[in-house]
Amino acid sequence: MHPDVEALAFLLGTWRGEGRGVYPTISSFDYGEEVRFGAMPGKPFLTYHQRTWALDDQRPLHAETGYWRPKPDGKVEVVLAHPTGIAEIEEGTVDNGVVSLVATAIGSAATAKQVDGLSRRFELVEPDVLRYEVHLAAAGQPLQGHLTAELRRVGEA
Amino acid sequence: MHPDVEALAFLLGTWRGEGRGVYPTISSFDYGEEVRFGAMPGKPFLTYHQRTWALDDQRPLHAETGYWRPKPDGKVEVVLAHPTGIAEIEEGTVDNGVVSLVATAIGSAATAKQVDGLSRRFELVEPDVLRYEVHLAAAGQPLQGHLTAELRRVGEA
Repeated sequence: MHPDVEALAFLLGTWRGEGRGVYPTISSFDYGEEVRFGAMPGKPFLTYHQRTWALDDQRPLHAETGYWRPKPDGKVEVVLAHPTGIAEIEEGTVDNGVVSLVATAIGSAATAKQVDGLSRRFELVEPDVLRYEVHLAAAGQPLQGHLTAELRRVGEA
Repeated sequence: MHPDVEALAFLLGTWRGEGRGVYPTISSFDYGEEVRFGAMPGKPFLTYHQRTWALDDQRPLHAETGYWRPKPDGKVEVVLAHPTGIAEIEEGTVDNGVVSLVATAIGSAATAKQVDGLSRRFELVEPDVLRYEVHLAAAGQPLQGHLTAELRRVGEA
């Protein structure tokens, strides 16, 4: 493993759990989720895959994929692609099991619904329990709480 | 499978092959490559994973991940994340086994090497043979040929 990965090594593995989504423009919803953080030999980043599904019939909902780049002085850069037509850069910090990120660049495909802002906070609350929250600015709304979830580490990446 | 996926269904599967990279600012290099195009039940996009390795010692080189979104009238939108700190949108067309894409938005993380332009052309030259070329503008150079490769379909995604 590349030594730079150490700062985010507490995220490595496969995580599963449930979350809840809220937003002024939609009905609230509950979802199941799987997140995988992996490492590649000698590479200074983590691979990241995420997918969610409806709790009633397991139909796929959202997905994300990308890379997490630990940097010196506790900095973190994340590059993400969303199948909704959004590609984004998030930047922030990791400190004592907490990763805080804010989108610094958001690109939208021609037919995508525009996203104006995104921020996230991940916290390792127990050795194998990860909680996160996502704040979203979209559909003309200011940045506000959108997603909260709690995941448990269920295995290797 | 979502009906929109049909326009890009010829890409589905796992592809392997070799390519060559050139650019005025670096030494030319040859690489091995695996590309996987998959589908998710009921979702109007393909999942995309790509990784390359050095032919001499198999060490990992580049990787990419993202989603390909077929749209009406032969249009295609691609959202990609690169572990080099780049997240980008590419847009273009699919016609008769040829996918042509140009980057319409390129976001860079703070410590990433900036990329100023990207374009790609994929062509299915036989039922299980895919060739592509990538043009790149970076390091102060104008958009020009960077990568060429030929891949063979070796299995399911």
